[in-house]
Amino acid sequence: MEEVKLYGKWPSPFYYRVLWTLKLKGIPFEYIEEDIKNKSPQLLQYNPVYKKIPVLVHGGKPICESMNIVQYIDEVWPQNSLLPADPYERSVARFWVTFAEDKGIPIMIKAFNTRGEEQEKAFEESLEMLRIVEEQCLGEKKFFGGDNLNIVDIAFGAIVHYFGLIAEISRFKLFEVEKFSHLHAWIKNFEEIPTIKENLPDHDKTVTFFKARREAQISGSS
Amino acid sequence: MEEVKLYGKWPSPFYYRVLWTLKLKGIPFEYIEEDIKNKSPQLLQYNPVYKKIPVLVHGGKPICESMNIVQYIDEVWPQNSLLPADPYERSVARFWVTFAEDKGIPIMIKAFNTRGEEQEKAFEESLEMLRIVEEQCLGEKKFFGGDNLNIVDIAFGAIVHYFGLIAEISRFKLFEVEKFSHLHAWIKNFEEIPTIKENLPDHDKTVTFFKARREAQISGSS
Repeated sequence: MEEVKLYGKWPSPFYYRVLWTLKLKGIPFEYIEEDIKNKSPQLLQYNPVYKKIPVLVHGGKPICESMNIVQYIDEVWPQNSLLPADPYERSVARFWVTFAEDKGIPIMIKAFNTRGEEQEKAFEESLEMLRIVEEQCLGEKKFFGGDNLNIVDIAFGAIVHYFGLIAEISRFKLFEVEKFSHLHAWIKNFEEIPTIKENLPDHDKTVTFFKARREAQISGSS
Repeated sequence: MEEVKLYGKWPSPFYYRVLWTLKLKGIPFEYIEEDIKNKSPQLLQYNPVYKKIPVLVHGGKPICESMNIVQYIDEVWPQNSLLPADPYERSVARFWVTFAEDKGIPIMIKAFNTRGEEQEKAFEESLEMLRIVEEQCLGEKKFFGGDNLNIVDIAFGAIVHYFGLIAEISRFKLFEVEKFSHLHAWIKNFEEIPTIKENLPDHDKTVTFFKARREAQISGSS
């Protein structure tokens, strides 16, 4: 088997998407933790367009962008498949993966990087986004993929887990059970999968890290 | 064969991507021209998240988002394949399709919707974006896919063709041959493919349409 290397950075949600996928598939790999303030020459060489983690290197060839890497892994190692076999179901899954990237990620970043009124607005937008996900995508299913996890769970797993942390830091009631009962049940199902549970970022350490980063941003901008 | 319907709007570049794909594959379909100011109940029902064209309806089931539709068509009708067979080459193609969506489209929209200094800035950004495409993606290949057209050609075909029109309207020299020799050669190769040539929006009609739309925006905002 050709060598697999993952360039990542704790606790990036984009890195966790790839980590979960490799672990769910049972693929052995070497992990290289990047220093974002002093990126390695390898990372810059492997991802010259974005210069960002995660990068997967398989047999010397780099694959960039987290959801692109997840699809690549799923095609090369088809066990515990993450994309449906039916072309129509695949197109529905890809639609929601793109929705997660185009709508979910920018709102998550905005919610993390803002304060006060601007952050409240970002949380309002995030609730609208999550409302669409709850009603039009998830419904009463156990996972986005139905009875089994699929690529949409990987895409939203990172977003919803981190939204929870941002909301906790900001003391914002994001997940009132009565308003998002399906998403509430889903994140519990998702995080109870043994492989996911064993590979979530440590809660207290992550909260401390994010708090420090937000404080550094605030003092830097004042 | 199950019925294929395409909901579109002349001269949307997103609609043209799907039109080119259906024509390249030789798939018969019914075309429904939407009125964007008075969208049909069918469009709203088929694409409740974005409420936008294009929508492909195949056997009664809707598929939304242009590049997602192109992938769906390629999986269901594999003739004249648009995605490489090799998983690594597929991941490279998907990387550039996502780049077209995340970088190319927003810059194109910004260039169209702005004026004066702001538009000049948008054109500067577009040149940086096209520089990456020329140097890191296209190189000296005939098509993005090599000797044959692939999904990356479809993604950038729409963007580059419309950039040319926007630049023409704005009297901006976008494609100086000496600066973008590879992209210049490529757009010629692309537009000379008989199926593409026969299915490009009429040049004069499109320029007139875009000019009127820009003027309406200017008078509306002053």
